[in-house]
Amino acid sequence: MILLLLEITQLLADATMDTNLDAGYFQTDAHNPSYFTIATNTQYKGDLTDYCVPVNHYFPPEELLNKLSNNLRDILKYYPDYAEKHQHNMSAFINVPSENIIPVNGSTELITILCKEMEGGVVCPVPTFGRWTDLPIDFNVPVHFIQREESNNFDLDVQHIIDTVRREKAQNLIICNPNNPTGASFTDGEISYLVEQLIDIERIIIDESFIDFSDIPSASELAIKSENVVVLKSMGKALGWHGIRLGYGVTNAQLAKKIRQSVPYWSINGIAAFVLDNLNDYKHIYQQSFIKIKDDRKYLLEQCAKLEQCKIFPSQANFIYMKLPDHFCGKRIRDALNDNFGLIIRECSNKIGSSENYCRIAVHKRKDTDKLINALNELLSIGDGA
Amino acid sequence: MILLLLEITQLLADATMDTNLDAGYFQTDAHNPSYFTIATNTQYKGDLTDYCVPVNHYFPPEELLNKLSNNLRDILKYYPDYAEKHQHNMSAFINVPSENIIPVNGSTELITILCKEMEGGVVCPVPTFGRWTDLPIDFNVPVHFIQREESNNFDLDVQHIIDTVRREKAQNLIICNPNNPTGASFTDGEISYLVEQLIDIERIIIDESFIDFSDIPSASELAIKSENVVVLKSMGKALGWHGIRLGYGVTNAQLAKKIRQSVPYWSINGIAAFVLDNLNDYKHIYQQSFIKIKDDRKYLLEQCAKLEQCKIFPSQANFIYMKLPDHFCGKRIRDALNDNFGLIIRECSNKIGSSENYCRIAVHKRKDTDKLINALNELLSIGDGA
Repeated sequence: MILLLLEITQLLADATMDTNLDAGYFQTDAHNPSYFTIATNTQYKGDLTDYCVPVNHYFPPEELLNKLSNNLRDILKYYPDYAEKHQHNMSAFINVPSENIIPVNGSTELITILCKEMEGGVVCPVPTFGRWTDLPIDFNVPVHFIQREESNNFDLDVQHIIDTVRREKAQNLIICNPNNPTGASFTDGEISYLVEQLIDIERIIIDESFIDFSDIPSASELAIKSENVVVLKSMGKALGWHGIRLGYGVTNAQLAKKIRQSVPYWSINGIAAFVLDNLNDYKHIYQQSFIKIKDDRKYLLEQCAKLEQCKIFPSQANFIYMKLPDHFCGKRIRDALNDNFGLIIRECSNKIGSSENYCRIAVHKRKDTDKLINALNELLSIGDGA
Repeated sequence: MILLLLEITQLLADATMDTNLDAGYFQTDAHNPSYFTIATNTQYKGDLTDYCVPVNHYFPPEELLNKLSNNLRDILKYYPDYAEKHQHNMSAFINVPSENIIPVNGSTELITILCKEMEGGVVCPVPTFGRWTDLPIDFNVPVHFIQREESNNFDLDVQHIIDTVRREKAQNLIICNPNNPTGASFTDGEISYLVEQLIDIERIIIDESFIDFSDIPSASELAIKSENVVVLKSMGKALGWHGIRLGYGVTNAQLAKKIRQSVPYWSINGIAAFVLDNLNDYKHIYQQSFIKIKDDRKYLLEQCAKLEQCKIFPSQANFIYMKLPDHFCGKRIRDALNDNFGLIIRECSNKIGSSENYCRIAVHKRKDTDKLINALNELLSIGDGA
């Protein structure tokens, strides 16, 4: 234990001396390395607990996993079904007409298509999901970032967004609701106002990947009726299965048909297709899971509020955004948690509009929240004494 | 049995009366309905045997399937790795430098990207894989089809291809080697000559999805050194896992990097990533499987040759192309095999350059080949008497 404390103290103290902390496997653009890469590279020898990937810990139910496992042979052997079948299944699950749905291989497939085909500049509040900031740059789309301010709990005034779109003469707007990694959100009234005021621009994209964890209603109905609104959603977060690769877009029927043409045949793999085909049988468990997660989030926020040196912010997602004390280096905290405690958090220095003072912590069941809080308490107290 | 014979006789006799045979679930563009859709809709009550999807019946080994099954929980829970990791794994498996590889969510992902970004017209021999004929049309690329002729065993003279590219002033050429559904192939000498003569066009695409079943060496090395050659390959066929969605492209490092930018992050799902990560341990079994399939193909060709009314053609793939007697309707044969015997074949009327006189039959183990031959014998003899 003394050796561990010494090691951690050294690790944290090194912070000011080392300007190239990410030389190793954490050096990735805008995103974190995968759990598997971390698990292979960490110095920690025991079981890891992940607070980086914001996963639903109350879904999928064991029965669905077993059903999948029992049918794995055929699922993997044959081609999966076509988009029509997935549209049909998604329609039944999310209560949106089939013709308005674009099934995709994870939301990133749709994000890539939308960014690649963007005409005119784009306005994007930051910090946000890395694909939304990196892809416009990769595809040479002129992009203007609006900084979300800590002083305002990272909330944004919609009139400010509208004014910025006009000033920048942007044809596209990206809104994440709730936002990743800050957890901040817009009300449905604010979204309606945005859409109403920006009726003439090319595209308003609303990323609702974390909306199931919030009290906000989806803007899908707005998107169906509009000329220019595309709602998109990763299903992995809510399903608790990021590795399955499944998501969708919702927009007016004509645009949906056009975008589907850019999505490759059989883009939804056999496992994702099987899950979609069985999902309606588990809808009640799915919906119940979000109630439990809201309760866990409340607990996480309460416990983090007790870490006097840190600052937390309101969140409508299954993660919270946390500011570390100014004299702490986020990368060192991340590495110390990882290598000494086997706990993985998301340090946010590689996100545009964030810094290594911020980290994102996924909502967990209470006992795992306690584990993280205890470790953080230990690290912060050592750091203070260093 | 008498009832069955009567039913089949009626079914086959109906052929001339019914001009809308595909009103049901077989009505799909260029491709067949999925195995799952057929299984749900067929009138046959027992276990189905599929000769439509050309799958490797000697891979994956049970051990790999079990390994996958045992790790399913974590594989599905977390984000899969990034392209770099897959490039590294593919590089070790196919012996091509990592920088030259584009990992994709099934070859259709790369086909869609290549067709969408095509500049100038394209020449494409037919019949061939439906995505190669439909996507240029979908994306408004001027396309000229070269008909492969039965009289020449569907083989093509490379000089004829070159002359056609020049005459049509095409900037792109698509070659499937071996070709699907005909099984015809080009020698490596012919491919080298094509590439040498068409060094000035924008893109020569060589689809090698079935090359593992053939005696032809891959053109990957040519592609790496060239300015304009892209080799692509579906891995599903050879792995025996179409539902897994995995494929790759090989080209010069600069172009590979550019194309990778169009591929969404995490496009390779967790299961495909896990398999890639473990594949090298099973390389010997993988290679042995192709020797067994060649033996099964020989048997299938021999048995089909005994169906006096049908004509078969040389094949380097894990399927053969068969011509039914002129007075037989392929759709009726397909439906009779399906509904009465539980056997699924690929009738080719929805392929450009083919007709319902042709069907594609996947290579199976001997006992399953016998099952199909017996059923075909029965149907063809009834048809004769009708």
